[in-house]
Amino acid sequence: FLLLYNSDNSHSLSWRRYRPEIAESVKQVFKAAEVPIEWEEHYVGTEIDPRTQSFLTWESLESVRRNKVGLKGPMATPIGKGHRSLNLTLRKELNLYANVRPCNSLPGYKTRYDDVNLITIRENTEGEYSGLEHQVLLKVSKIITRQASLRVAEYAFHYAKTHGRERVSAIHKANIMQKTDGLFLKCCREVAEKYPEITYEEVVIDNCCMMLVKNPALFDVLVMPNLYGDIISDLCAGLIGGLGLTPSCNIGEGGIALAEAVHGSAPDIAGKNLANPTALLLSAVTMLRHLELNDKADMIQDAILNTIAEGRYRTADLGGSSSTTDFTRAICDHL
Amino acid sequence: FLLLYNSDNSHSLSWRRYRPEIAESVKQVFKAAEVPIEWEEHYVGTEIDPRTQSFLTWESLESVRRNKVGLKGPMATPIGKGHRSLNLTLRKELNLYANVRPCNSLPGYKTRYDDVNLITIRENTEGEYSGLEHQVLLKVSKIITRQASLRVAEYAFHYAKTHGRERVSAIHKANIMQKTDGLFLKCCREVAEKYPEITYEEVVIDNCCMMLVKNPALFDVLVMPNLYGDIISDLCAGLIGGLGLTPSCNIGEGGIALAEAVHGSAPDIAGKNLANPTALLLSAVTMLRHLELNDKADMIQDAILNTIAEGRYRTADLGGSSSTTDFTRAICDHL
Ligand SMILES: CC(C)[C@H](C(=O)O)[C@@H](O)C(=O)O
Ligand SMILES: CC(C)[C@H](C(=O)O)[C@@H](O)C(=O)O
Repeated sequence: FLLLYNSDNSHSLSWRRYRPEIAESVKQVFKAAEVPIEWEEHYVGTEIDPRTQSFLTWESLESVRRNKVGLKGPMATPIGKGHRSLNLTLRKELNLYANVRPCNSLPGYKTRYDDVNLITIRENTEGEYSGLEHQVLLKVSKIITRQASLRVAEYAFHYAKTHGRERVSAIHKANIMQKTDGLFLKCCREVAEKYPEITYEEVVIDNCCMMLVKNPALFDVLVMPNLYGDIISDLCAGLIGGLGLTPSCNIGEGGIALAEAVHGSAPDIAGKNLANPTALLLSAVTMLRHLELNDKADMIQDAILNTIAEGRYRTADLGGSSSTTDFTRAICDHL
Repeated sequence: FLLLYNSDNSHSLSWRRYRPEIAESVKQVFKAAEVPIEWEEHYVGTEIDPRTQSFLTWESLESVRRNKVGLKGPMATPIGKGHRSLNLTLRKELNLYANVRPCNSLPGYKTRYDDVNLITIRENTEGEYSGLEHQVLLKVSKIITRQASLRVAEYAFHYAKTHGRERVSAIHKANIMQKTDGLFLKCCREVAEKYPEITYEEVVIDNCCMMLVKNPALFDVLVMPNLYGDIISDLCAGLIGGLGLTPSCNIGEGGIALAEAVHGSAPDIAGKNLANPTALLLSAVTMLRHLELNDKADMIQDAILNTIAEGRYRTADLGGSSSTTDFTRAICDHL
């Protein structure tokens, strides 16, 4: 089962309904790999759904709740019109408490770094994002709760343990924000005690950013409050080439996993068969792992990485001139 | 006139009074370059001064107020004892509203980046740092005011104009924090209108971090609220090799300039004649520019950069084996 949301980035109320080429690419690759799932497709609505107070339809949310798994194409919220952000609505309605982003150097795609192999795990529901309504923060208070901090810390340590990772670094600014970040650290420490086999450390966010650009190999699993996660996960994506290459998956209460491409919907090239489907494909792979379809996940991931490494077919953002379709076909050939 | 604070990083109340070798290095280089200033030296106290509620003495603060210029060695506040942070006290008492950090690749010292030439200008008094008392944030509210935002924006544009810079980027997260960061942007826009010759742009912080690690040459002058400045200035320092190599200067009301080395006091190597004085020396250079002693500033800066570029004398942190004294002597020879 799988779900796709698509929208364009149009800053008007008339959202065109179209199926971007990168979603099509995932469907083709899944078909070629004979992944045993059926797609259930949903689109962002053209009008605000009163039951969600956003352009997200109630049906689409129900679909994720029912299937417990989904894949979300790039979605952008029209700016400055007072609607609730689609991404934030999803996080809130589905209680997507952890955003997980594996970040690995791609063999064959050179950046300044060739030693990146880390995971950022972002608390996804509170902090500076608390109390958002219609994207306006009425009172800018940062809220950190024990419950949400324990939950994401638990997720991070469990992830580390089950994925053969050795270290969890909690990122914070508790020297300034003792009440909030201090509580976050306290929760991480509590959970750390239950995982003696995992090394635990605490790193101040400014220092963390400096160390990440100097030597990303110093890090393994990073766990942090919402805003730091927003910042650091994008920084890490930059190390390996950008958001077009990094998978993302949101974990919700009750075992929900909503994978997503976090890059923008690139309205300038959307619909022109030029976009790079890598981030959505790699996100789809994380979804397959969540479904414990690990053979299919490995197979597809290898095909993607090999296609990029080989370098014959690359989209424009990676310095090539292939169309989305050509690149997709090359991946299918590598399966 | 110049002022030095020195302390060690001892986490006890008994602060040893000693003069670290990097301060000595600045004094030697200034003497060799015949800089026409006299030093007025102050140390962090061994007891809390009731007039400052911190280990900073009232006399030392008065000295900066009187001289309007100062150089501060690395200072650390003992953690978790409920004293007010020395750095935060200084910012508050002297109203140091802008922290300015030029960040340039050092010729001859290779990092992954060779094209860094940017300045971060950080609002230094409010945001998440508002209402700090004894390093405990009683209520974690982010406060952004029109007055402080206009003041730092004005500083940034004026800096850009008088330093031949072409672009100012305001860094923000106004899509989430409309009330606070939105106000910050509004102020930047107002000031930007007075500087039509400077290009103005707004960049969301997460995206900014990604772009910085992908291509720092995209940026010129960056201006931002307190916490983002804390994060991004360290990230930028990482691009060129770390805090040991980056100058910093704090600008206060009434024309005060307090230059500083922002790296730690490195208690493991302090007093062993091993520390790299580059950050403090380059900070001292920014102080000279503030005093409009530009010839001396250029002369000293060239000597530092040439010594590093030549590579014969380098301290351990840069992969060499020179002592602080040898490195300093080499700089003096290059004058
Ligand atoms: C669009 C924005 C609200 C969002 C966030 O800040 O969380 C985005 O940056 C992200 O990381 O998904
Ligand atoms: C030590 C800490 C309070 C300080 C800050 O957060 O401002 C430091 O990181 C800095 O950048 O000067």
